[in-house]
Amino acid sequence: MATLDRVSAAAPIGRRDRKKAETREALRRAALELALEHGYEQLTVEAITEAADVSVRTFFNYFASKDEALLGSDPQRAELLAAWVAERPPDEPPVAALRAAFAQLAESFAEGQPLWEARMELLRRSPQLWGPLFAGFVVFERSVVEAVAARTGSDPDADLYPGVLAAAAVGAMRVAVAHWRAGGESAPLPELVISAFDLLAGGLKKP
Amino acid sequence: MATLDRVSAAAPIGRRDRKKAETREALRRAALELALEHGYEQLTVEAITEAADVSVRTFFNYFASKDEALLGSDPQRAELLAAWVAERPPDEPPVAALRAAFAQLAESFAEGQPLWEARMELLRRSPQLWGPLFAGFVVFERSVVEAVAARTGSDPDADLYPGVLAAAAVGAMRVAVAHWRAGGESAPLPELVISAFDLLAGGLKKP
Repeated sequence: MATLDRVSAAAPIGRRDRKKAETREALRRAALELALEHGYEQLTVEAITEAADVSVRTFFNYFASKDEALLGSDPQRAELLAAWVAERPPDEPPVAALRAAFAQLAESFAEGQPLWEARMELLRRSPQLWGPLFAGFVVFERSVVEAVAARTGSDPDADLYPGVLAAAAVGAMRVAVAHWRAGGESAPLPELVISAFDLLAGGLKKP
Repeated sequence: MATLDRVSAAAPIGRRDRKKAETREALRRAALELALEHGYEQLTVEAITEAADVSVRTFFNYFASKDEALLGSDPQRAELLAAWVAERPPDEPPVAALRAAFAQLAESFAEGQPLWEARMELLRRSPQLWGPLFAGFVVFERSVVEAVAARTGSDPDADLYPGVLAAAAVGAMRVAVAHWRAGGESAPLPELVISAFDLLAGGLKKP
């Protein structure tokens, strides 16, 4: 086993990330299925980990609470996005750096999609989950604000700039996802995201 | 009384609108105070109208439900905004028309402000209200989408443009309000709104 652990630790990053994404997805799916079957109030972390066949400790490597597993909130997603923004060429305009980072985020969205319907059904049945969902949006947008502020040397509390750019970016992403879903996911999401950001970069003139 | 009614019906629009705004505000205030005092579940429309000294029928001229009174959702606000957008000169770029309309909306925001703290407190105590609040945001943004689509002859379901512009506009407004509140409301809100929309019109380049 020790040998196996070392082998997997030395495995290429792509495979390890894929394995982690699979575990995260399995936990989310188990949480949603159990909540829809037995009710949100009855759901425990123990039941989720039993259904997904992992330890409770593993669960808390991925999520801070059952709500986080149910809602698809993902602190890692915000961290990844911030890292991608930081990695863009320093002379690239901020809106172009966000366009590239959000398009990269869009690449990972297709996988989680089948859970969205289940999540909407759960929100219909347990409207108290809208609060944590909303809180997750706020945390995500705040991380975009900070990524913009770090890149541009702005003060997010004194300057409108980082906040308005982040709100516009998150809004553009949201609208691209809504169009993608409404269109039966026929157009590739990253392309829609790039089109939406091009509207921002063009001063929202009608194309 | 009939004479008085005719007189008030003939009164200048400014005064009648002010009177209506006062009644709406009194109903909201009564609803929030009662909900915080006795709990959300116990609140009835009858209790609100008694406290505000108006008829139940009057209540329903302003709000469709107790939730609407509590949450500051306001279908009239969305209608007003859409009307202001439609009234802007036809050759004005869409983002400039929205800038003018949202700045006009901002003029009316200062009044309702003292209720925001009470509303946040109620949301903390009754998280099931996040659902209706969120639904109100969605309805408001959709009305902006439709105002843009009507003005530009776009199809909001086929084109990304009206959705992205509306999301960016609502986001810019939200960030302007957040800065205004965080700054102790020292700067006039309409000026902050105009600055935020100027960032949109400038393609979100750092100023």
